[in-house]
Amino acid sequence: MVKVQTRGAGGTVSADAEAAYRKKTPRSRRLHAVSSRLHVNGVHHNIRHFEPYPFVAASARAQRITDVDSNSYTDYWMGHWSLILGHSPPAVRRAIAGQLGRGWMHGTVSMPSIELSEEIARSVRVAEKTRYVASGTEAVMYAARIARATTGRRVVAKVGGGWHGYASDLLKSVNWPFGSESRGVYGERNIVTIPHNDLEGSVRALRRAGRELACIVVEPLLGGGGCVPSNRDYMRGLQEFARSRGALLVLDEIVTGFRFRLGCLYPTMRLDPDIVTLGKIVGGGMPIGAMCGKDEVMRVANTSEFGKASRSYVGGGTFSANPASMSAGLSTLRALRSRASVYARIGRLGEAARRGLERALDGRAVTTGIGSLFMAHFGGGGRPVRSADDAARRDTGLLHRFHFELIARDGIFFLPGKLGAVSAAHTAADIRALVGAAGRFSAELGGGR
Amino acid sequence: MVKVQTRGAGGTVSADAEAAYRKKTPRSRRLHAVSSRLHVNGVHHNIRHFEPYPFVAASARAQRITDVDSNSYTDYWMGHWSLILGHSPPAVRRAIAGQLGRGWMHGTVSMPSIELSEEIARSVRVAEKTRYVASGTEAVMYAARIARATTGRRVVAKVGGGWHGYASDLLKSVNWPFGSESRGVYGERNIVTIPHNDLEGSVRALRRAGRELACIVVEPLLGGGGCVPSNRDYMRGLQEFARSRGALLVLDEIVTGFRFRLGCLYPTMRLDPDIVTLGKIVGGGMPIGAMCGKDEVMRVANTSEFGKASRSYVGGGTFSANPASMSAGLSTLRALRSRASVYARIGRLGEAARRGLERALDGRAVTTGIGSLFMAHFGGGGRPVRSADDAARRDTGLLHRFHFELIARDGIFFLPGKLGAVSAAHTAADIRALVGAAGRFSAELGGGR
Repeated sequence: MVKVQTRGAGGTVSADAEAAYRKKTPRSRRLHAVSSRLHVNGVHHNIRHFEPYPFVAASARAQRITDVDSNSYTDYWMGHWSLILGHSPPAVRRAIAGQLGRGWMHGTVSMPSIELSEEIARSVRVAEKTRYVASGTEAVMYAARIARATTGRRVVAKVGGGWHGYASDLLKSVNWPFGSESRGVYGERNIVTIPHNDLEGSVRALRRAGRELACIVVEPLLGGGGCVPSNRDYMRGLQEFARSRGALLVLDEIVTGFRFRLGCLYPTMRLDPDIVTLGKIVGGGMPIGAMCGKDEVMRVANTSEFGKASRSYVGGGTFSANPASMSAGLSTLRALRSRASVYARIGRLGEAARRGLERALDGRAVTTGIGSLFMAHFGGGGRPVRSADDAARRDTGLLHRFHFELIARDGIFFLPGKLGAVSAAHTAADIRALVGAAGRFSAELGGGR
Repeated sequence: MVKVQTRGAGGTVSADAEAAYRKKTPRSRRLHAVSSRLHVNGVHHNIRHFEPYPFVAASARAQRITDVDSNSYTDYWMGHWSLILGHSPPAVRRAIAGQLGRGWMHGTVSMPSIELSEEIARSVRVAEKTRYVASGTEAVMYAARIARATTGRRVVAKVGGGWHGYASDLLKSVNWPFGSESRGVYGERNIVTIPHNDLEGSVRALRRAGRELACIVVEPLLGGGGCVPSNRDYMRGLQEFARSRGALLVLDEIVTGFRFRLGCLYPTMRLDPDIVTLGKIVGGGMPIGAMCGKDEVMRVANTSEFGKASRSYVGGGTFSANPASMSAGLSTLRALRSRASVYARIGRLGEAARRGLERALDGRAVTTGIGSLFMAHFGGGGRPVRSADDAARRDTGLLHRFHFELIARDGIFFLPGKLGAVSAAHTAADIRALVGAAGRFSAELGGGR
């Protein structure tokens, strides 16, 4: 059972659903053929591929995405969960459009980055210093480098099933079974894998790193790893271990930052990280990654202060702090601050989705998630999913089939196999439609599980 | 003599120029203090810092950038050289604004990526397959990974002084003297440095890599490395060596792609690379990186075709092929195609800048570059700069001083120490003003060199 199963995943899709999908997406089929001629696997992110072919998006607004055949889908993928206000929210659109008139690439220090960092620092205490880069992949790569430079040690510990982007420094133990992920990556011996939500097992693995442990990188809720919250005691245990060894705690809040509250998830766990990485929501759907850290840690990246022998060289790059991304992020965070009740509302919709799906799927699945993030896990006889390992061992093929049928028959879009995100644009009626579709799916599966 | 000299670089600036700069930039000074409280070194890319403080940009249009004190500068930095049409060109602005209405983050296959790749493939023969990522840093990281996966070998060779972004896999021998760049980077033993434009020396170094050579990564013109063209015979010799050893040739055309002609620079050298990386211009100033490669090479990244044991896992990420960047790039390339004479025109202005600067600086400096890219190198007694080593050994402190005086006194902006790029928005009068300012700078230096 491969977690991100692309090859052959279509085999779990019913012939009826595939026929319905093919029938309504003829232009997508033709364009997919063009895209496959031009692009590896027809996509620009491996997970965006699904069988028989992904539809081609034409436009998106609020909670809906529309394909080139004019099929409209209620979207729970929401741009890799980056669009908490929905697609193209007017305030953010106005902010970006306004910035276009003032230039979208200044290439030097620019007002919007200062304003965005002020906004983040109001809500994220660890953000004593922030640095923007172009993606979450870059942010975590640099966070690991800063930790290595600060400690003078080489080992980065990460959770099996934890997803921190494709940088060579973190690319290990992402997909089940949690081992090597790619040819052409060296330095995997500098990455130690720890079992999610298993403190004892994690401490055993961490001890093997000995004095070479530079940092532990972990998400408060595993996004790509199955929408599984990390336990507070687990997280506090990891922090304690890191502290006792002089290693850093790096929290990857790229998925969770500003998702559940104004700020990060870590204060709710009473954690005190050294570096937090942000992305997605803080860029309003435009390209961004951010490292927010304590002064004493981040200063090793200051090239005015440190020469080649002692500095950590951490970017950014051409597009770091580009005014378009900064403006989109700033207007998004300001919108969230001005109506903070949005979190309670989308949290209730998320809870309705979790309860509704469990009820409609009638014992075939349990759900995970908190607030506006939710995910169904099939199989497992009703036992709760408590870790990334649990999530990976469930019937991911059936989840894929469920999601594909929603696309083919119900006009509901989850990226097959991935968690769903409620945005401010979603309604209670959307959730009811989702739950209704799940009920029909369950009924058609019949008695046999 | 440190090439990217930030610390203490202000020391080479005349007191008069610094006083003039401080006098006209009081708001920038105050905002820099705010930025320095929020950000490492006050910036988001190390090179954007200069002493006493960089001005804070408020807006940019055509060939001009305006700071928060309403000082306007003729811009030759041009967004890290990504804006070949100038700042905020109306056609590109309209394309992005139009895309905003259709959504800027679809998170799935989307029309603009197909159209952009078709446009690139028309002009770049090696682009049999393209994959978009968020930055040039990511593009070169993945290109190296593909080369390692395809060959099953670990060593990446790069030019001393070659700049390919901050990814751990390429971060070595960037700044003079060409050694280690950063603490916290492991795997430097997998990077072999070769001397720029020295084929014999390069072959000697490459031979030491033995059977472990996966690829040679090289720019046809070194951008960050001093605006120095790579010799055709040098490049062809590297290609021949790579071929003879079963290694790949990866050309980094992030600076040079679509800069001098519709397409890449490599066909003018009659090269046949396996992978070309693009960025900057092909994204119209919005965040982008691209790997364009031959089918047989790129297919190792196809996760539908290859499982974990044999695939190369190469992203992208959340922002890969985002519609905003794709639309900006597409409209930029279409604008270039519709008026290809722009290359001849900006090439003539670049040539006028090179000749004019050499004349005005009166033997104190030589220039390098081709077409619309140009750079002055002080010192060296009039000897030409033929390699990255040559460029790094010149008087970079005096270049920094020259650029700072242009900012302080003449309203002309180069990022201090970096090459200049002419855009379609620049005029012959702009170049005359630059040459005139250089003449005054030279006169004030007086007889002593």
